Amino acid sequence: MRLVLANPNATTSVTDACAALARAAASPGTEVVAWTNREGPPIVDSWYADYFAGRPLARGLRALSPMPDVIVLAGFGNYGTGAVKEALDVPVVSLPDAAMSIAVPLCHRFAIVTTTPRMIPYTEDLVAAAGFRERCAAVAAVSLPPLGAALSDDAVVAELAAEVERVRTATRADLVILGGARLSPYAAALRTLVTPTVLEPVACGVQMAEALVRLGLRQTKTGKYAPPPQAFEAYE
Amino acid sequence: MRLVLANPNATTSVTDACAALARAAASPGTEVVAWTNREGPPIVDSWYADYFAGRPLARGLRALSPMPDVIVLAGFGNYGTGAVKEALDVPVVSLPDAAMSIAVPLCHRFAIVTTTPRMIPYTEDLVAAAGFRERCAAVAAVSLPPLGAALSDDAVVAELAAEVERVRTATRADLVILGGARLSPYAAALRTLVTPTVLEPVACGVQMAEALVRLGLRQTKTGKYAPPPQAFEAYE
Amino acid sequence: MRLVLANPNATTSVTDACAALARAAASPGTEVVAWTNREGPPIVDSWYADYFAGRPLARGLRALSPMPDVIVLAGFGNYGTGAVKEALDVPVVSLPDAAMSIAVPLCHRFAIVTTTPRMIPYTEDLVAAAGFRERCAAVAAVSLPPLGAALSDDAVVAELAAEVERVRTATRADLVILGGARLSPYAAALRTLVTPTVLEPVACGVQMAEALVRLGLRQTKTGKYAPPPQAFEAYE
Amino acid sequence: MRLVLANPNATTSVTDACAALARAAASPGTEVVAWTNREGPPIVDSWYADYFAGRPLARGLRALSPMPDVIVLAGFGNYGTGAVKEALDVPVVSLPDAAMSIAVPLCHRFAIVTTTPRMIPYTEDLVAAAGFRERCAAVAAVSLPPLGAALSDDAVVAELAAEVERVRTATRADLVILGGARLSPYAAALRTLVTPTVLEPVACGVQMAEALVRLGLRQTKTGKYAPPPQAFEAYE
Amino acid sequence: MRLVLANPNATTSVTDACAALARAAASPGTEVVAWTNREGPPIVDSWYADYFAGRPLARGLRALSPMPDVIVLAGFGNYGTGAVKEALDVPVVSLPDAAMSIAVPLCHRFAIVTTTPRMIPYTEDLVAAAGFRERCAAVAAVSLPPLGAALSDDAVVAELAAEVERVRTATRADLVILGGARLSPYAAALRTLVTPTVLEPVACGVQMAEALVRLGLRQTKTGKYAPPPQAFEAYE
Amino acid sequence: MRLVLANPNATTSVTDACAALARAAASPGTEVVAWTNREGPPIVDSWYADYFAGRPLARGLRALSPMPDVIVLAGFGNYGTGAVKEALDVPVVSLPDAAMSIAVPLCHRFAIVTTTPRMIPYTEDLVAAAGFRERCAAVAAVSLPPLGAALSDDAVVAELAAEVERVRTATRADLVILGGARLSPYAAALRTLVTPTVLEPVACGVQMAEALVRLGLRQTKTGKYAPPPQAFEAYE
Repeated sequence: MRLVLANPNATTSVTDACAALARAAASPGTEVVAWTNREGPPIVDSWYADYFAGRPLARGLRALSPMPDVIVLAGFGNYGTGAVKEALDVPVVSLPDAAMSIAVPLCHRFAIVTTTPRMIPYTEDLVAAAGFRERCAAVAAVSLPPLGAALSDDAVVAELAAEVERVRTATRADLVILGGARLSPYAAALRTLVTPTVLEPVACGVQMAEALVRLGLRQTKTGKYAPPPQAFEAYE
Repeated sequence: MRLVLANPNATTSVTDACAALARAAASPGTEVVAWTNREGPPIVDSWYADYFAGRPLARGLRALSPMPDVIVLAGFGNYGTGAVKEALDVPVVSLPDAAMSIAVPLCHRFAIVTTTPRMIPYTEDLVAAAGFRERCAAVAAVSLPPLGAALSDDAVVAELAAEVERVRTATRADLVILGGARLSPYAAALRTLVTPTVLEPVACGVQMAEALVRLGLRQTKTGKYAPPPQAFEAYE
Repeated sequence: MRLVLANPNATTSVTDACAALARAAASPGTEVVAWTNREGPPIVDSWYADYFAGRPLARGLRALSPMPDVIVLAGFGNYGTGAVKEALDVPVVSLPDAAMSIAVPLCHRFAIVTTTPRMIPYTEDLVAAAGFRERCAAVAAVSLPPLGAALSDDAVVAELAAEVERVRTATRADLVILGGARLSPYAAALRTLVTPTVLEPVACGVQMAEALVRLGLRQTKTGKYAPPPQAFEAYE
Repeated sequence: MRLVLANPNATTSVTDACAALARAAASPGTEVVAWTNREGPPIVDSWYADYFAGRPLARGLRALSPMPDVIVLAGFGNYGTGAVKEALDVPVVSLPDAAMSIAVPLCHRFAIVTTTPRMIPYTEDLVAAAGFRERCAAVAAVSLPPLGAALSDDAVVAELAAEVERVRTATRADLVILGGARLSPYAAALRTLVTPTVLEPVACGVQMAEALVRLGLRQTKTGKYAPPPQAFEAYE
Repeated sequence: MRLVLANPNATTSVTDACAALARAAASPGTEVVAWTNREGPPIVDSWYADYFAGRPLARGLRALSPMPDVIVLAGFGNYGTGAVKEALDVPVVSLPDAAMSIAVPLCHRFAIVTTTPRMIPYTEDLVAAAGFRERCAAVAAVSLPPLGAALSDDAVVAELAAEVERVRTATRADLVILGGARLSPYAAALRTLVTPTVLEPVACGVQMAEALVRLGLRQTKTGKYAPPPQAFEAYE
Repeated sequence: MRLVLANPNATTSVTDACAALARAAASPGTEVVAWTNREGPPIVDSWYADYFAGRPLARGLRALSPMPDVIVLAGFGNYGTGAVKEALDVPVVSLPDAAMSIAVPLCHRFAIVTTTPRMIPYTEDLVAAAGFRERCAAVAAVSLPPLGAALSDDAVVAELAAEVERVRTATRADLVILGGARLSPYAAALRTLVTPTVLEPVACGVQMAEALVRLGLRQTKTGKYAPPPQAFEAYE
């Protein structure tokens, strides 16, 4: 099957890192095609960036040709997931969707660790919108430096590990979701250091996407995610 | 005070109708300036349209000069309300915010009647995101024809009245919010026909906006609605 | 318009302080008339006091002549708000109603700081009854001395500021409501010291009251707040 | 033990009917003493009546001499239950408390049938305040005539039975609580006609009261129901 | 009346301790018959043990002859409570049912202290299943040694007291339920040391059981707890 | 990979039907091994049957040799899922887990249609325990005849279709989960007749199981699903 991994921001280094994780998680026979939202913002770090990302993301993915079998939106956010689900006839998987859906059967209560304290309310809104508040123990954050700043891998992993253990002690969360594409590459190292199960959302998204294709399922096109009522051109 | 009434869609006839309602609701001394999101879609009838509206809305309002004292977003939707609240230092009021906040102290449970069944899930998401589910008895809909189609005022009012009474009987809602800018002009006629209190959101938004200016309040700029971390140009 | 600011307790110094805040918050053309519940308790510091306040409050306000355009109940409590709303045909605004309704669109989650730890469960009940639990991060308290005891303004402000910052750190609340009429006079000083937005409920109540009058709205007299079924005299 | 059955309204025929039910439900050795809130309203049919009932109820019960072992508040309402719990050192049981606490372990979801549609929002507020919304399928109502009007027992039972079966079909409630003291005398007849289990709250209240006395328990006097901070006289 | 106190585990010393508490709590005329689930596990310390307990518990109690008037399941867990309620025509009371039902009217919010941190998620599931989350402030734990290990009474009481006060400070819980049959014998000593009200569930269960018998009530046999559809032998 | 499809009941015809569905849903390279809980009841049609199923299920699966890579519990129920997750080190997937986790990102709100009205409360308990109430619009039921009775496929499909459309109209659910292994074979035929998306849980379970194995994930063995504290033999 052909899976487009769509980075909602415009930063190709993030696309590349996610694509590497996606290819490692994909099954034989799944072709992962990376796509970057070149008209989007360099990073989704606010609701402002979210809406700047969503419009070109929805338009760009609608115009994909050939249309892939499935799309994974490779950012831990909203940025128009509903719009993309409406616009496309193929299944669309977002990282929060995939990670929380896989987390719930595995744990008592999960926590999400995001990239900066600034994104905690944004991420809590995602959890609430998905209806997972009963199973979410907490949203917490490390403090990643701005995109492009020098970043010591060891320092990031250490900070993540400290935050994960702090959250676990405070809330008894037994599973942690890495809530930001920039955190995904640290999942393997983090797992060696902390007690809770660690979910890396890109891999979860790829597996969920493959599952939907195999099951012949997609977002409810006769329900919430029906196509927009007008011709696409009318919206532009 | 100077109040910008910002229509998130590009249809100036909707802007005009809302501006008339807004001026009727404004206090002496409040200047209502109408603004249309000319790069937005003609109507917000889906999540797709919502994201197409949000990006130019946020950018356009950020660029207003002179900046008004307060902004009312004159559509019953999301279309980047959070983004606008982050981007601006003046208070920003959305219609769902204003209508639900005014409804809650007045009633036992409110219902929302929106423009088409297509928008019910979208509107339920708004209610949930605002944290008002405990007080919302139902979201229902009439079936407005597409923008531009001939529309009999009497027929719309009759359909609204029938739906309001149906919802009241089914759920005991004692207040109804008109959930769509296109419905607002029918509020006065509807009030003569139905039992529940009818809220017209544009007027609620204007009053809430004036109240915030007088109170010296705005969205929490040191909290959820802090300015985006980067220079605005960086997002484009 | 004529606005009665009704203090549910019998202490005129509290009435006077609230009336001063109300007049400062009122628009030109709004006449604020202070009213004291002389048959009520000196302070509402318990459910016992609440019920002692509510009966004379409801009877006293029902008997106002001439009836004002709107009434603001100037205490952060219940004390029969529902009873007053039923009994009167003019709009009735309580401080918790007004403050929470204005807070919700401005913030991610609000906290309430009340006057004594004794009142925390009472205040949590108010939040739950209004249906605002999803948006309330915490109810906390300072420890005001009894009414009449010497009170250092600086000490109160310092204690409030410390408690606000404690709550903010513990819960990420980005807005704080002062949950007690005795705290209202400290709002301005507090704002200079703390990170979250501070809401002073008397001013919120006055603005909400004016908005209702301008909008022609009141509690749902055809629904929850229908007049009591019997003649008023029958209840006495 | 000595149990005071306190009717929160002033109508002695209601007191008598409840006292008969209470005596039938009491264990040997329990003396049921009926008490009428003579300064209260003739019936609690609104929040207005509720607050008129609560003040003399709290004052009257506080002044009981000798103080009984336990008090059952024999009305299906609020009318200052919290105030009475604060004021007294002996256990205080309200009918909604007792009926819902006994209902929950017996059923999947309970319904409450109250005396008039007017009381449905009031009763829903009771359910929410107690924290039982997850287990309450619905609040419904018959339409009892005013107090004193001629009342055919057969007609009341038939109307109750019809409403119970309607609610059961609509919501799958498998237990019904009679939500009004005036309905209690019909419980036995109703049980012969309907599918769900029928709870009669006066009997539940008496049994809960006896249980608390035998267990040496009462409302948390070191917590929510601590005595009011001032001398009782100070509130009057 | 004849009350069977059924220990869901196979450890007779636990049966004996609970039976002693039950007899102390029973009214004159109530005969407490202890029963041990000899084919169950020695202790219910996991969901695995829970299911090992439930099957023989349900089968064993169904086969009681003569059938008692009421059954109290004397462990703070699930272990097939629903199965037993379905299988039997007499009322069945579980300890969490009884303790939480009695706690709710007495307090603002209760906490549960269980026997080991391992059982916190299990116990939180019980609270959620019963629909009591709104009233439960926290589930906490001491760390009892394994069954059979030497156990200093003073040390257990001291650890319980410390944990109760820690939970009270952290959550303002004003009532604590001892969530494990092994903790029940320490209730009296604990009460002398801590601020919150302490509920001992065996006594609560006995009183609730007696109340049901006197009220002629049992689980809804025409609803959720209808008898299994097939002959009992068919399940074995 | 080796996947054991474990039927919690003892009826091999159900095992066979589920195994066929599982094999059709499995990816190349996945070996589906069917297993029947021969000491369990013939059908799980009550909480009584559930506990009769759970004990031999947990014991039987723990004793599998060789241990497979993953286990799918092929019944739409509880029957000790938590016990099996504790007991095993390999990932364990239940049908409700898998179906609800896959449903949530695809729809606005899902409904579950189960096999008989008797199982509606049981199934509602499953939804609540998983924390999915916010996303579940309703649990409904057809009325399958007892196991072994003659069953017209056309009649079952027609009844299912009618019930699905009834639920969709009443609740706006846009996705339906078949809540019973006996219903799974009708999924394909049902899809041709109804508007909502239809989820067949066995296929969902197989895909979720494969995903977990590929992701190297399993239930949190350092958290809620830690192994039981004692040696397995101690429980028997």
